Amino acid sequence: MKKKIKCFNSIKELIFNYKFFISKEIKIKGWVKHFRYNCFIIINDGSTINNLQIFIDKKFYSLVKKINIGISIEVIGVLVLSQGKEQNIEIYANKIKIIGKFSPEELQKTILQPKTHSFKKLREQAYLRFRTSIFSSILRIRHNISFSIHKFFFQKNFMYINTPIITTYDSEGAGEMFRVTNFDLKKIPLNEKGELNNNLDFFGTSTYLTVSGQLQGEAAASGLGKIYTFGPTFRAEKSNTFRHLSEFWMIEPEMSFSKLVHNMNFAEKLLKYVIKFVINNSYEDLFFLEKKNKRKIFKRLNNVLESSFERISYTNAIKILKSRKKVEFLQSINWGEDLKSEHEKFLAENYFNNPIIIYNYPLKIKPFYMRINNDNKTVAAMDIIFPYIGEIIGGSQREERYNVLLKRILELNLNIKSLWWYLNIRRFGSVPHSGFGLGFERLIQYITNIDNIKDVIPFPRYPNHAYF
Amino acid sequence: MKKKIKCFNSIKELIFNYKFFISKEIKIKGWVKHFRYNCFIIINDGSTINNLQIFIDKKFYSLVKKINIGISIEVIGVLVLSQGKEQNIEIYANKIKIIGKFSPEELQKTILQPKTHSFKKLREQAYLRFRTSIFSSILRIRHNISFSIHKFFFQKNFMYINTPIITTYDSEGAGEMFRVTNFDLKKIPLNEKGELNNNLDFFGTSTYLTVSGQLQGEAAASGLGKIYTFGPTFRAEKSNTFRHLSEFWMIEPEMSFSKLVHNMNFAEKLLKYVIKFVINNSYEDLFFLEKKNKRKIFKRLNNVLESSFERISYTNAIKILKSRKKVEFLQSINWGEDLKSEHEKFLAENYFNNPIIIYNYPLKIKPFYMRINNDNKTVAAMDIIFPYIGEIIGGSQREERYNVLLKRILELNLNIKSLWWYLNIRRFGSVPHSGFGLGFERLIQYITNIDNIKDVIPFPRYPNHAYF
Repeated sequence: MKKKIKCFNSIKELIFNYKFFISKEIKIKGWVKHFRYNCFIIINDGSTINNLQIFIDKKFYSLVKKINIGISIEVIGVLVLSQGKEQNIEIYANKIKIIGKFSPEELQKTILQPKTHSFKKLREQAYLRFRTSIFSSILRIRHNISFSIHKFFFQKNFMYINTPIITTYDSEGAGEMFRVTNFDLKKIPLNEKGELNNNLDFFGTSTYLTVSGQLQGEAAASGLGKIYTFGPTFRAEKSNTFRHLSEFWMIEPEMSFSKLVHNMNFAEKLLKYVIKFVINNSYEDLFFLEKKNKRKIFKRLNNVLESSFERISYTNAIKILKSRKKVEFLQSINWGEDLKSEHEKFLAENYFNNPIIIYNYPLKIKPFYMRINNDNKTVAAMDIIFPYIGEIIGGSQREERYNVLLKRILELNLNIKSLWWYLNIRRFGSVPHSGFGLGFERLIQYITNIDNIKDVIPFPRYPNHAYF
Repeated sequence: MKKKIKCFNSIKELIFNYKFFISKEIKIKGWVKHFRYNCFIIINDGSTINNLQIFIDKKFYSLVKKINIGISIEVIGVLVLSQGKEQNIEIYANKIKIIGKFSPEELQKTILQPKTHSFKKLREQAYLRFRTSIFSSILRIRHNISFSIHKFFFQKNFMYINTPIITTYDSEGAGEMFRVTNFDLKKIPLNEKGELNNNLDFFGTSTYLTVSGQLQGEAAASGLGKIYTFGPTFRAEKSNTFRHLSEFWMIEPEMSFSKLVHNMNFAEKLLKYVIKFVINNSYEDLFFLEKKNKRKIFKRLNNVLESSFERISYTNAIKILKSRKKVEFLQSINWGEDLKSEHEKFLAENYFNNPIIIYNYPLKIKPFYMRINNDNKTVAAMDIIFPYIGEIIGGSQREERYNVLLKRILELNLNIKSLWWYLNIRRFGSVPHSGFGLGFERLIQYITNIDNIKDVIPFPRYPNHAYF
């Protein structure tokens, strides 16, 4: 009779269920992470930061010569409690099968070789970095952040909406956009006047990659009540910094029958929920990153959980900044000007030492769709500023009054031809509504305390870089 | 002392919790759906297909004149059990506030007027159709399908991966792709030879919108073990049919250490989980659609749940099709040719009357990355065909042998310069792996039994159509 061997789908499942299988024969697969004293092989399969130790006795000594770090193997063996301090369990190998092998010389060329590589080096072999402890940790955390966001909105009865990626207009009225076209770029059709014949393009008009799903999100919320988007957005800015990507993911909730204060309350709840979820579900990966990168993670996250976000109007923020005689800012600040990151930094890190919400910004420095306050000088905007990272959320109550919005669109000389439908949302049963945008990668950066945004996304896109 | 009024965030929450608030004063908001006999106002807020009935007495008779369908109102009133058969509860209004009003004449112009509009008409006012019962039902179901997919993968320890939208190559080796560019289309830079100077474009090379995240997904799975993508994909095909969109969402799982049979098992589990989840969570919306559209929904869905997907090799499928002497196919079929939809239809609807999985397709009709079987004539591909809708999933075991894959890339004359890294995944610890693609909108179409794919996505994109 054939022996029954328990096959595990992943090391994570094995570790979770090991108590039921002690002294039983099991089968498990993974990539070789380390080798110790010719009697241990340590494997990992990406499901968890925890490795699995395989004990090999004499009968494998000829096989051992063929094994090097990075190759993939299948192991059948007996699960036992480990004597070592570093793990609960290990496997006494009965059978080892090499699946995918390569030479130690080839290993030298890759980031799979066991030493600390710079983040830059990892990025150069981005298609392989999923195999490294550090990047797989970051991506497992990314996964949990993503799921926690969907779960939170699901529980709160927000409908997930996919707003279009290909659009005909610029919702921010400012950002540089990528053109999407089906033209043969060597034979661009021009009309008699020498102008682009955009109506011959695929969509019968000029089209671009979206910079935000907000406007369509507002339309959806004006029927479904409460919605959120979670999708890719794009900026064709030539900035190559630690905080910018040309392609990044955004979460944009939009709530009907909701004013600025609800928006603030809700954003604070969302951020705290996500952080709690991630601490509970990614504890080991966060712990690994904290040790590996020698950066505080848990302390920062707990600070957010324990604090009540400080709320301060833009006008009062300016007052505080102007009253700090001892603080030398590189750039001075006056009412009506946008806060620079050094000002935000000072307020969040030094003055309040807390996440802060700054609200009621001057009308002139904010987009057209924000609701004008009674003072006619400010809009019902709010930005959430985190210590050490800066703005993490930007939102507002939206202008729901048809005539006020129309006046603003005309004043700013925006393209009414592409905004008519957005304006029309205010015509047929308009309601106060508000929402915000949360940059997904910025949030991951904050939670993982990773400096460069390019290291928290699988395949980063930025100027001159669309590799893999 | 001010009376305490319970404010509900949504009608869904009120209906869920009504038992605790009978005879209490509550506050609720929504859009007017109907009017009855001047003594009832029926409102809805998009959170559920269920409306809320507001009873109004004489004191509101002057207000009633200002009310018409579509406007938004806020109601304070006493929650009571309803005498009517159509609802459990209703509100005796104490106070009604009109939030956003507009005239009955304006109403006539919109799809908000209470009559049955064609799907085409709804699409023409896509920014307003979220307010209609039928489209809001479809989108609430879409939301639940989406969440069920994330939940299933989360439970199965698959990591959610965001593969890039902007890519440099065509992973299917066939599809027409949209170009993404930052060039001024009136001043395209050419080099001395009159060729496009693509290295001057934003990314230093020519870039396109992705047609699939599979290749990058394979890279991720080769480190994280099991992953899935769920993101937008694009086709620049000039097809305007009931089953095609230029922009649609895809789910693409990829599993390391996994062969074709696991792939089939897993796909079947996923589809059944999603359908079960949706029946449980969207029962009322599905019920509404079944009645409204006079289309079978529950019977079809239960058939899928109760059936075991029939598995049949391509070769056997051809044998069955050729042996049916009485069936007249428009197009004949021979071994080596791709099945046409009439053939798939016959097999799924007439022959098996069941979802079917056809596997081991001829090498020549499938993409380069599928694993070549020992017969050297077929590949380890699998398509899942549903009755009445056709192919819903296409997948395969991937070619994990470096030399075999290299040979295939060269034979097909594919661009090795953009595929080197994909090939390299097979160089450093290659493992058998497999995965599939599931078209999100096709799945929604099947579940909701909606004919046109344009009616299951908020803002459809297709040739000459990128409105809103």
